[in-house]
Amino acid sequence: MVQSEQHAALPLSKASTVIAYETIKSAIHRTPIFSSSTLSASLPNANTLYFKAENLQKGGAFKFRGASFSLSQLTSGELAKGNHAGALALAAKERGVKCYVVMPNNSAKPKVDAVRGYGAEITFCEPNARARAATLAAVQARTGATFVPPYDAVNTILGQGTALLELLEQAPEPLAAVFAPVGGGGLLAGTALAAEGSGVRVFGAEPAGADDCAQGLREGKRREDVQAETIADGLRTPVGVLNFPIIQERVERVMVVSDEETAEAMRLMWERLKLVVEPSGAAAFAAVRSKAFQELGITGPVGVIISGGNVDLSQPLPWFK
Amino acid sequence: MVQSEQHAALPLSKASTVIAYETIKSAIHRTPIFSSSTLSASLPNANTLYFKAENLQKGGAFKFRGASFSLSQLTSGELAKGNHAGALALAAKERGVKCYVVMPNNSAKPKVDAVRGYGAEITFCEPNARARAATLAAVQARTGATFVPPYDAVNTILGQGTALLELLEQAPEPLAAVFAPVGGGGLLAGTALAAEGSGVRVFGAEPAGADDCAQGLREGKRREDVQAETIADGLRTPVGVLNFPIIQERVERVMVVSDEETAEAMRLMWERLKLVVEPSGAAAFAAVRSKAFQELGITGPVGVIISGGNVDLSQPLPWFK
Repeated sequence: MVQSEQHAALPLSKASTVIAYETIKSAIHRTPIFSSSTLSASLPNANTLYFKAENLQKGGAFKFRGASFSLSQLTSGELAKGNHAGALALAAKERGVKCYVVMPNNSAKPKVDAVRGYGAEITFCEPNARARAATLAAVQARTGATFVPPYDAVNTILGQGTALLELLEQAPEPLAAVFAPVGGGGLLAGTALAAEGSGVRVFGAEPAGADDCAQGLREGKRREDVQAETIADGLRTPVGVLNFPIIQERVERVMVVSDEETAEAMRLMWERLKLVVEPSGAAAFAAVRSKAFQELGITGPVGVIISGGNVDLSQPLPWFK
Repeated sequence: MVQSEQHAALPLSKASTVIAYETIKSAIHRTPIFSSSTLSASLPNANTLYFKAENLQKGGAFKFRGASFSLSQLTSGELAKGNHAGALALAAKERGVKCYVVMPNNSAKPKVDAVRGYGAEITFCEPNARARAATLAAVQARTGATFVPPYDAVNTILGQGTALLELLEQAPEPLAAVFAPVGGGGLLAGTALAAEGSGVRVFGAEPAGADDCAQGLREGKRREDVQAETIADGLRTPVGVLNFPIIQERVERVMVVSDEETAEAMRLMWERLKLVVEPSGAAAFAAVRSKAFQELGITGPVGVIISGGNVDLSQPLPWFK
């Protein structure tokens, strides 16, 4: 059993996202950006859209960025849980380190298969927070591995912020705004940090069925209780302790979208972009299309971070539900 | 009413596909290529796969190449029918020329909407060959427009061949083989021409429910009667008069795949490549996975042309059927 050492923590800043990007650049995919004149034309403000296709990232989601950067800051040993298990297992495999994953026993089969395919050792737990914490503790005690949190951690946030840095390099013109979905808040907080000084206004997108972040922002205090009824399975997580204040300080607004709006946005993206986009990835586009955003009168180009493309294709698509 | 003039026809040769490519290069998308180590590892010969994503082409399919080149060879006026209507309407719109389209009255709504959205004038006909020919003649008589055939025409074939030229430029290593689906045979014949002198072995993929080309090759004579019962709606067309002898001469073999194999390949591509791929586009990958191909023992890299991504998302996906 190998003990791991961690590098000194970086500050939560734009400069740190740049360091993260330099660190993981050679390990990640530089995912392409997509535009669609039809989708742009359908918006009241006709914003030119630049979709950042993180569904084409390794592991099928932006999570690989945070996982890669987190791993790069460890010398050995790690442990994953939750949604980013696939990304972490893959990043660990590519670095040749052992990965242990704790997953709820009702996880979708493709997700379990992917994690297993990347060579990680899975321990299943009951699908609730208490069982997960207990199993996690047991696995850590047994293996001595280091826990790599899926969103509520400095390195994860910095890694996720690199998607926007890349998008800003790729977009042929300056963006007026950027949208990222918010579940745990790793992607949105990272995006907000990375946007510093760029003049890009940062917006979040959250499903109405799990809108703890938007509620917390209204109330000035992170909510710890969360309902989570939404098709956007990646966004059911409550926003993290580290993530919330960054969002509070740097994100202009978190737009709340209904599952119907998300499903409609998802279908439009599949039809027009020809990309398999998961509901969480479509939520950000749904927010761009929302009256709430369009009424702000922003007419410039808008970036949309497609968080991922991990859809369970053994289930009917959401617009059939 | 404007009379159109056509340039002198180019010979059916590799050199002509190169001319076609130079001509249309600035009008088309240079579509990206995709790899997947998981999909490659699943093959008995572990061929490295390079998918040419023509589903990301303008209009959502390779058809835009042939339509663009055909239009470039006209001075004005044109008329479309059939499957390539969307591509032609879009190419015509971009060139600012008037487009008339004849479509069967049972065409899928998204297809009709797309054609209309590109500003073409649609005349509907009964969904059979006789009605189509009669309507086509009537529209031509009324408008004086030039008919642009969807596959059985020199310029269409040359334009479609440019997808392989581009793939060969993009692939980081020489290909051992390339697969293209065959319906009317524009893409496969063009691919075969473009492959000349490259050392790439060319294979076709045809659904068992519409395998007139494979049958014709066995019998040494193009079949004119075709059944057409397959989920691969783009491949229901009988192979064309010009196309067949090119395929006969230059394609090593046309592999026949079942609809089940195509649906399975399609699902794998959606899951792993995160691309919306139409059944016709998946047929080529199904053929790569087939025992018939894998038993040839080719171990080198294989190109797979994803013909398009025009899927009717209002219908259940094929693996639910």
